[in-house]
Amino acid sequence: MKKIAVVLAGCGFLDGAEIHESVCTLLALDRAGAKAQCFAPDIPQMHVVNHFNGQVAAGESRNVLAEAARIARGQIKALHEARARDFDAVIVPGGFGSAKNLCDFAVKGADCQVNPEVARFLREFHTAGKPVGLICISPALGAKLFGSEGVELTIGNDAGTAAALEKLGARHVECAVDGIHVDRVRRVVTTPAYMYHARIGEIAAGIEKLVGAVLEMA
Amino acid sequence: MKKIAVVLAGCGFLDGAEIHESVCTLLALDRAGAKAQCFAPDIPQMHVVNHFNGQVAAGESRNVLAEAARIARGQIKALHEARARDFDAVIVPGGFGSAKNLCDFAVKGADCQVNPEVARFLREFHTAGKPVGLICISPALGAKLFGSEGVELTIGNDAGTAAALEKLGARHVECAVDGIHVDRVRRVVTTPAYMYHARIGEIAAGIEKLVGAVLEMA
Repeated sequence: MKKIAVVLAGCGFLDGAEIHESVCTLLALDRAGAKAQCFAPDIPQMHVVNHFNGQVAAGESRNVLAEAARIARGQIKALHEARARDFDAVIVPGGFGSAKNLCDFAVKGADCQVNPEVARFLREFHTAGKPVGLICISPALGAKLFGSEGVELTIGNDAGTAAALEKLGARHVECAVDGIHVDRVRRVVTTPAYMYHARIGEIAAGIEKLVGAVLEMA
Repeated sequence: MKKIAVVLAGCGFLDGAEIHESVCTLLALDRAGAKAQCFAPDIPQMHVVNHFNGQVAAGESRNVLAEAARIARGQIKALHEARARDFDAVIVPGGFGSAKNLCDFAVKGADCQVNPEVARFLREFHTAGKPVGLICISPALGAKLFGSEGVELTIGNDAGTAAALEKLGARHVECAVDGIHVDRVRRVVTTPAYMYHARIGEIAAGIEKLVGAVLEMA
C-alpha cells in the first residue's frame, strides 16, 4: 500500500486549504488503495476570513494545524515531524492558505518565500526522486522551489499569476479544469482545480487524474 | 435539473458539519446532474472544539453560518430565507454540529429540541411529500420531527443512540456504512456514514446511494 503525505494549509478556501480539493484528494487516494497521512505547519494563519461575507475578521487568530485538523478529522501531525523517507509521494491541495500560510505568494507574488518546514519537506521528496502533486494555487510552491530547473506547472488562466510563476523560472502549461500536466523530468504533477470558476465535479475529475499520475510515478 | 437544499451545521465534525460527508454530498449531487444550494442557521455554535487536541476552546465563539460558508465556498444562505417550495428535496449531512447546533440531541438525547428554523424547513418538505435525506447522526432530527409516524432510520450500531431514537418513536434499522435505508412511506432516506469508524471511500459510497435514492424520489 502506497503512503502519501497530504499537506494542508488550514480549513477554508479564503484563508486555509480549499476544502473540496482536500476532501477530493483524500477520497481519490482511498479509492486508489493508497494510505494518506495529513500534515500542517503548527503556525498562526496569516489572517482569518469570514467566508459568509468575505471580510477579514479583525482581531481573530487561528492556528493552521488546528484548523487543518477539521479536514483530517483529527488524524493529522505537525509538519515538523514529517519526513519524506516515510512516504512515497506528497500532495498539496490549494486554497488561498497555500499562498498565505505555506508561502506568501498571495502577498509577494514572485518575491515570495516558502515556510521553511514546507520547503524542507517538499525538497526532501524532490531530491529523492519522489513525485510531488500540486493542486490549484499550490504550483506557486513548485515554481519557487523548483523554478531553477524549469519545472512545468499548471496555474489556470490568469495571466498575471502565470507570469509570476514564469518569473521564478517555471514554465506555465495551459490545462483544462478536469485535466493534469505531468512533468516527468522533475516528477511534478499539477491540476488547476478552483483556479477556474468550476463545478465540484470538474475539479474532482482533475484531482482524480492527479492522484492517479502521482501513484503511478510513486 | 433538480434543486436540492443542503443544510450545514458549521465546519468540522466535533462542533459543526462533518466535512467529508458534506463534500461527498455536494460532489454526488453535482455528478448526478442536480443543483445544490447550501443553507445554515445564523446562530452561534454550541461551542468551538480544537480538532487537533479534541479539547473545547474556552472563550472562543463562532457562527454556524459563517463556518458552514467555508464548506460552501461562500455560496450559502441563512436558513431563515429557505423555503421548501423552491426545492425538490433536502439533505442534512452529519457531524456533531447536527446534534449540537441544529438540535441539542448531543446533550439531551431523547429529550432534545430542534432549532425552530431547522424544524420548520424540514417539516415543509415532509408535509409536501418531498424526500428528506439524513446522514450520520442527522437521523436524530428525523426521529424528533417524524418519530410520531414511526419513521424508519439508520444510526449506526451504538445501542444507546439507537435506543434514544426509538424512544422518540422512530424504528432503528441496522445498515452497513456503504448502505442506505429508504423509508418509502415517510419519504426519508438515511445512511450511517461516520457513525461507524470508517474510511472516506466507504462513507462516500453510502452517501452516493443516498443522493441517488433522494433524487429518484424527488
